[in-house]
Amino acid sequence: MTESPVKLTAEDGPDQPPATPELEDLYRGFEKELLVPLWTRIGDLMPQQPVSKAQPHRWEWKHLVELAARSGELVPVGRGGERRAIALANPSLGGRPYATPTLWAAIQYLMPGEDAPEHRHTQNAFRFVVEGSGVWTVVEGDAVPMRRGDFLPQAGMNWHAHHNAAEQPMAWIDGLDIPFQYDVESQFFDFGRAVLPDAERTTPARSRSERLWGHPGLVPVSQFKVSAGSPLLCYRWADTDAALTDQLELGDSYTVEPGHAVVRYTNPTTAGDVLPTIRVQFHRIAKGVETAPRRETGSSVYQVFDGAGRVTVGDFSWSVQRGDLFVVPSWMPLAVVSEASGSDSDSGALDLFQFSDAPIFSKLNLFREEVAR
Amino acid sequence: MTESPVKLTAEDGPDQPPATPELEDLYRGFEKELLVPLWTRIGDLMPQQPVSKAQPHRWEWKHLVELAARSGELVPVGRGGERRAIALANPSLGGRPYATPTLWAAIQYLMPGEDAPEHRHTQNAFRFVVEGSGVWTVVEGDAVPMRRGDFLPQAGMNWHAHHNAAEQPMAWIDGLDIPFQYDVESQFFDFGRAVLPDAERTTPARSRSERLWGHPGLVPVSQFKVSAGSPLLCYRWADTDAALTDQLELGDSYTVEPGHAVVRYTNPTTAGDVLPTIRVQFHRIAKGVETAPRRETGSSVYQVFDGAGRVTVGDFSWSVQRGDLFVVPSWMPLAVVSEASGSDSDSGALDLFQFSDAPIFSKLNLFREEVAR
Amino acid sequence: MTESPVKLTAEDGPDQPPATPELEDLYRGFEKELLVPLWTRIGDLMPQQPVSKAQPHRWEWKHLVELAARSGELVPVGRGGERRAIALANPSLGGRPYATPTLWAAIQYLMPGEDAPEHRHTQNAFRFVVEGSGVWTVVEGDAVPMRRGDFLPQAGMNWHAHHNAAEQPMAWIDGLDIPFQYDVESQFFDFGRAVLPDAERTTPARSRSERLWGHPGLVPVSQFKVSAGSPLLCYRWADTDAALTDQLELGDSYTVEPGHAVVRYTNPTTAGDVLPTIRVQFHRIAKGVETAPRRETGSSVYQVFDGAGRVTVGDFSWSVQRGDLFVVPSWMPLAVVSEASGSDSDSGALDLFQFSDAPIFSKLNLFREEVAR
Amino acid sequence: MTESPVKLTAEDGPDQPPATPELEDLYRGFEKELLVPLWTRIGDLMPQQPVSKAQPHRWEWKHLVELAARSGELVPVGRGGERRAIALANPSLGGRPYATPTLWAAIQYLMPGEDAPEHRHTQNAFRFVVEGSGVWTVVEGDAVPMRRGDFLPQAGMNWHAHHNAAEQPMAWIDGLDIPFQYDVESQFFDFGRAVLPDAERTTPARSRSERLWGHPGLVPVSQFKVSAGSPLLCYRWADTDAALTDQLELGDSYTVEPGHAVVRYTNPTTAGDVLPTIRVQFHRIAKGVETAPRRETGSSVYQVFDGAGRVTVGDFSWSVQRGDLFVVPSWMPLAVVSEASGSDSDSGALDLFQFSDAPIFSKLNLFREEVAR
Repeated sequence: MTESPVKLTAEDGPDQPPATPELEDLYRGFEKELLVPLWTRIGDLMPQQPVSKAQPHRWEWKHLVELAARSGELVPVGRGGERRAIALANPSLGGRPYATPTLWAAIQYLMPGEDAPEHRHTQNAFRFVVEGSGVWTVVEGDAVPMRRGDFLPQAGMNWHAHHNAAEQPMAWIDGLDIPFQYDVESQFFDFGRAVLPDAERTTPARSRSERLWGHPGLVPVSQFKVSAGSPLLCYRWADTDAALTDQLELGDSYTVEPGHAVVRYTNPTTAGDVLPTIRVQFHRIAKGVETAPRRETGSSVYQVFDGAGRVTVGDFSWSVQRGDLFVVPSWMPLAVVSEASGSDSDSGALDLFQFSDAPIFSKLNLFREEVAR
Repeated sequence: MTESPVKLTAEDGPDQPPATPELEDLYRGFEKELLVPLWTRIGDLMPQQPVSKAQPHRWEWKHLVELAARSGELVPVGRGGERRAIALANPSLGGRPYATPTLWAAIQYLMPGEDAPEHRHTQNAFRFVVEGSGVWTVVEGDAVPMRRGDFLPQAGMNWHAHHNAAEQPMAWIDGLDIPFQYDVESQFFDFGRAVLPDAERTTPARSRSERLWGHPGLVPVSQFKVSAGSPLLCYRWADTDAALTDQLELGDSYTVEPGHAVVRYTNPTTAGDVLPTIRVQFHRIAKGVETAPRRETGSSVYQVFDGAGRVTVGDFSWSVQRGDLFVVPSWMPLAVVSEASGSDSDSGALDLFQFSDAPIFSKLNLFREEVAR
Repeated sequence: MTESPVKLTAEDGPDQPPATPELEDLYRGFEKELLVPLWTRIGDLMPQQPVSKAQPHRWEWKHLVELAARSGELVPVGRGGERRAIALANPSLGGRPYATPTLWAAIQYLMPGEDAPEHRHTQNAFRFVVEGSGVWTVVEGDAVPMRRGDFLPQAGMNWHAHHNAAEQPMAWIDGLDIPFQYDVESQFFDFGRAVLPDAERTTPARSRSERLWGHPGLVPVSQFKVSAGSPLLCYRWADTDAALTDQLELGDSYTVEPGHAVVRYTNPTTAGDVLPTIRVQFHRIAKGVETAPRRETGSSVYQVFDGAGRVTVGDFSWSVQRGDLFVVPSWMPLAVVSEASGSDSDSGALDLFQFSDAPIFSKLNLFREEVAR
Repeated sequence: MTESPVKLTAEDGPDQPPATPELEDLYRGFEKELLVPLWTRIGDLMPQQPVSKAQPHRWEWKHLVELAARSGELVPVGRGGERRAIALANPSLGGRPYATPTLWAAIQYLMPGEDAPEHRHTQNAFRFVVEGSGVWTVVEGDAVPMRRGDFLPQAGMNWHAHHNAAEQPMAWIDGLDIPFQYDVESQFFDFGRAVLPDAERTTPARSRSERLWGHPGLVPVSQFKVSAGSPLLCYRWADTDAALTDQLELGDSYTVEPGHAVVRYTNPTTAGDVLPTIRVQFHRIAKGVETAPRRETGSSVYQVFDGAGRVTVGDFSWSVQRGDLFVVPSWMPLAVVSEASGSDSDSGALDLFQFSDAPIFSKLNLFREEVAR
């Protein structure tokens, strides 16, 4: 007979019944029938507030880029491995490539002339470019250029490939809901063409999607239908930068707190989050500003786009600069101080790109947030 | 005894019962009790398809502007009359200032230095500028400049005023749902300040609303909430023009029909129509293109923004040029031919601004459309 | 030349400009070009609050039934006239068969063995039965029996017919949005079969729709899809009565005000109003209770189902009893006193059936209500 | 220095790069920086279709009840342990009390006179009664009796307690989204009163919630607002049974397949699923009917309510009878044969209660289903 995976003892927690022979006998019965009593597990399963399995952590961009560049030399990209993407593995999540319990974040790297083969999957994805340019993402035949500051959402089940049309390598970050979909078991994945035909390896300055959907408040009548993921495949840095600049200039009545502007990327067919499971926002924190500690259900990954500062998440605190990534687990408070550094932009502001799993919580009536003022 | 407003005879329609003395007696009973039998009225009340009370009609811009300019000399603007607005009166609607059974359209005119006093109302409104500049609309303290090609939605119950800061008069068109709200009896109207304080009579190049909401796909997190009317108070011509140019260049797979691009103005908090009762769209019809006859439930008002052409609505047909307005009653087919004229833009395209009552029909499950191909 | 329907004078309202020859000349220009200035009409078109074209009025059931019965003898029912329905004509609405500016209400009457022919139309409709039984409404092949207290919604474009399978005539009321659809011009109407085949002239005790959709909180998975009108074709009196009894018994925390219970009929596929344009509610006012004056945008028609009372609408006041109908125009306050009468039910409560155009206002962001406490 | 949780080798999967010293060096760099390359993990993380971590399994009711009864003798119920609930532990989920990766299912047991203390939590929950009666669930002061066939939803953050007012013990099943909320880390939990006051330990035959919300298609106007979880706290067996009987009698056009009726429990304020994360349905499969194999993303737990049959899930197959529970993991096909047994109801139908995590998939655009016909 196979051994039961269930193991029970009367010492499993506080407030347990006395460990009599009858109780032992009962617990052996539970094990045999694959049963676990609530009273031995409730503290772990139903805590009084979220206690994350993940730990706050920071990754330094300089190490990521260096390792990615060495991968570019040593590891080919192609069918099977699919992408030269190197994922952040939260130290508390058992060595799995999970930045948080629900989110995947990786640096992707493509050498000059290389192609990442076409595929599609239910996992919702995006790219964000902290430096460089020269790669085009081709989505359903639409070639989208990637440049510093651009955000490219990629909702589930769109065919997509990448090709590097430049003379130098390019790195960027990928965000996906891989851990979430792994947990709930919703994944489908299809392989497409290993190499795109030349007709699709074009390098236009603007994608078709931007020409149709990139004009503020205007939708193309012939294409309009509600879709779960955004049909706009690139949100350009110039727009994001202008929106942040405008918001800060309008003053404290229009920012989330004094000196702290935030914009959210939205789907122009729903006005909701840009991806069904992932919320994406951009923060600009003026020089010298310290944000109020704030926490919410669900987890986030941040990348420093520009500037420098000091970040505190729960009991952890790090100095961060351009390209560095850090994670904020569920219900842990985050506070940020924007610290000017000599090498930064004139404004001295700290620019932070953020993605989180908030849509999962919002749509399922589980979202909570709290600000300490 | 008061005479009954009800008058019945057995000859009221086809298929009527024989006009016996007993029937006459019954009909006198109906009149006395304020009753009307369906069988005498069904053909009128429940037609087999919409038979509009309105008639297609065109107004020529040159006459409108001339009469508006003379009003500028003769009629003051101020509290009571509220606006120097002159409305289109559909010839079939009994002399009432209704462009269609549900929509009001007017030319508004403001002399240099003049102010239109502040008020607010449940009627949803907008301005559209076919020529000129120099007037600012002030909405809840936010001064919005108006220039050729700009579209300014003004959802119900926002406080608003206008002031002309230029050296010359300015004319534009106003669209409202006055006839609809008159029919259903939903109107509220409040007077505000007769003259705005100087602090609100500023002339910024961009409004606060544009700085917060005018960046494509980006929403200001501190301001975000679903609202029935758009928080973006001006949709600039440069954006509309670019969207139309892009759509036509992408080709026939992306236009509503070959050579005919259409964009719709949307509310960035809902992705739905820009106003709760009014749909607003912009058409560009390439030189030489003839659109397929198309009809829909509900009525529209069009204004020629640029170019020239020939318009056919049911049995009516007119040549139109810049500034001319025309109405399309419910379920009457519209077809347009874009005809280049010497004095027009290089492209020779016909640009048409359109507003309609389509949201009323869509939200109440009454929208139908039909294209003859 | 045709005479213009537009007629303007400088005496059209208060605050008018002085009637100079130049102004007269301008006004002749407006008339010629079919234009009407706002300043001559604003007081009427944009009042400070709704001023209804309709007047409160009551119709006594005994007169309605008597006239309907005489129609049964004199007027055949069949193709063309379609229904032996006699509509309430509000005395202030020019003799048209409109109970309110948006709503139609009629008594319908069918003699033993008679059929009302099949048709369908965009107008949303319902039947409500204040007395009698014996008629079946056949909707898309589903025969639905009608009995005292039953409410039968009939959303737009369902095929429907009636047949009286009893030995005696039957009367009931029909409610439709005919005036509203006449105003906005959305109407389509199709004739069906003049006589239903015997296979559809069945007389089951329960309809198919009730068997699929009439179980509380339960939906049939194979049939479930969101639809604008309710798929449940009859809401039985036993359920309505029980809901009202329960609500009153639970006490004042659960009623809209002390002694005044209200239930609303809903569409089980949306949880919204039972018809796209018509809200339907049932009120029970305990003996001796006087309701607080309450007004809302939009209009209502009420029918007394049981009990007796005194109704006040604006400046009008009437005693009402079983079957009597009355209308409440937009923004006029309604107050009701429930007065026990000897011939009534034991409880002495006043039961009122109500239908209104509230969904039009709610969906278009125009609904307001006010209670005087 | 702490050892890294990341462990990488070049043999981690197919299509790996050659295991050179340089690659080994790179992998040590990844481990040090807490990074995991996609190419070593993609097959596991992004499978071509869902490969469930869970295994199909069946639990026999007779064993569950027997062990629950012994727990009733040995284990007290009270503050701390909170509930005498014994959960199904899927044999492939590591001994954790998870029926599926997202769902918890347990048998709860209460002795005569016992109370389960009041608490509330974000986890969405329900009770379903396969046999017995005598326990009341008290929700926000509303005492709801539980009897065979009743389904009691309990949306997140309602205060609730139980008390057994009968002379004998009672068992029922609890379903919750504990594993899902554990994974995404959304849990909050508050303790309430250890013992309810006598005023709330009443034993009414119907709850307040049923009196307000239990009438088909009727909502109480004073209480109506959209809420994420159903305000109707009990769906009675008589209604469910009648809905299933009606659906089967109407014939194959109205069932999901011949001889297989399904009803879904819905929230009367939204017409959507009865709980934000849990879909609940009831199946009746006529005697002798074999259902077509069907699979969907997400997992389900079934309990046999009546009848007997043979169930096949992927490669597993079991005979089942009253009270038995079984789980269907994501994307595994389920087929059922209804087999009459001597001891069953006259109809010989197989009645199955089902709950699943389908709302999570539907709301996040991840739901797929497939039927083999």
